[in-house]
This record gives sequence, C-alpha cells and structure tokens, in this order.
Amino acid sequence: MAVEVVYRSSRDLERLFMDKAEADRHDRMLELAEKLAEVLRQAQPALDERQAEELGIYMAKHRELFAKAFRNQTDALDELLAPTGA
Amino acid sequence: MAVEVVYRSSRDLERLFMDKAEADRHDRMLELAEKLAEVLRQAQPALDERQAEELGIYMAKHRELFAKAFRNQTDALDELLAPTGA
Repeated sequence: MAVEVVYRSSRDLERLFMDKAEADRHDRMLELAEKLAEVLRQAQPALDERQAEELGIYMAKHRELFAKAFRNQTDALDELLAPTGA
Repeated sequence: MAVEVVYRSSRDLERLFMDKAEADRHDRMLELAEKLAEVLRQAQPALDERQAEELGIYMAKHRELFAKAFRNQTDALDELLAPTGA
C-alpha cells in the first residue's frame, strides 16, 4: 500500500491522470470545448445543448486540424472525413 | 450604357462583387463553411443539415477568431459572446 499523486481537471472530476502534463492537456481541451459549445449555441439558439457540447469536444480534440483549416488550409479537415471509397 | 466586369463565387451565384479580391474572399469563406458543415455532420449525424450549414458559415466568417482559439487563445472567442451585463 502506498499513497500516490494523481491529477485531474476541475472540469472533469472523474478522469484521473498519473501525469500532470496530460491532466493539463485534458483541462485545456475541455476549456476550449466549453467555449466552443457556448459560441455555437449563441450562433444557433435552436441547437441542442448536448449536441453543442459534443461538437465542442469533438472540435477541441482535433484542435490542431481545425487551427490549420481556419488558417487557410481548409483541406486539413479532410483527415477527419471518412473515406468514401469502397 | 456600358459593359462591366463583375465577379462571383461558383459556390454562390447570386452574390456579385465589383472587386475580384472580395469575390475570392467570399469563395474561400464558403469553401471553409462547406467543409466545416460536412465535418460537423459527420461528427453528429443527428445534426440538422441547415443548422450545420449555418454553423459552418458562422465559423468561417469569424475564421480569424476561431484560428486563435484553436491555437491556445481560447479567450479569443469571448469577442463573439454577447455581453451578459445589464
């Protein structure tokens, strides 16, 4: 038996990390996701709250690709699209 | 009477521009908007097609702010949020 240090984001108390840097990353992802959901819901008030949350998390998880797309590399998002081939 | 040159994006035949650079900008905005709508709908298949389109256009119109937000300046999006003060 031993006491050990674990880390978590105050935005998601259930997810524990052994590594502080990973916990930081998770926290930053959730911070962006929350802000995105808020902005999407303001732009489209009819948007379902849960859908807005999930879209925010989805985009925040792929923030690098979205950052590229918003900076004139629209094709960066192709990586997220399922192949249409057989 | 005179003949004049006007410009338009093949993605939006109704909007005419006197300035080619503006037409280009409009075309790039719509290109990003379409891709965003496609990605959002893939991430959330239950998302209404019209809502996805409008969210895509909204984000593409504010691409600079979203680019910043996705590059670790989450607060950039605060500019889009309506003031909550009285």
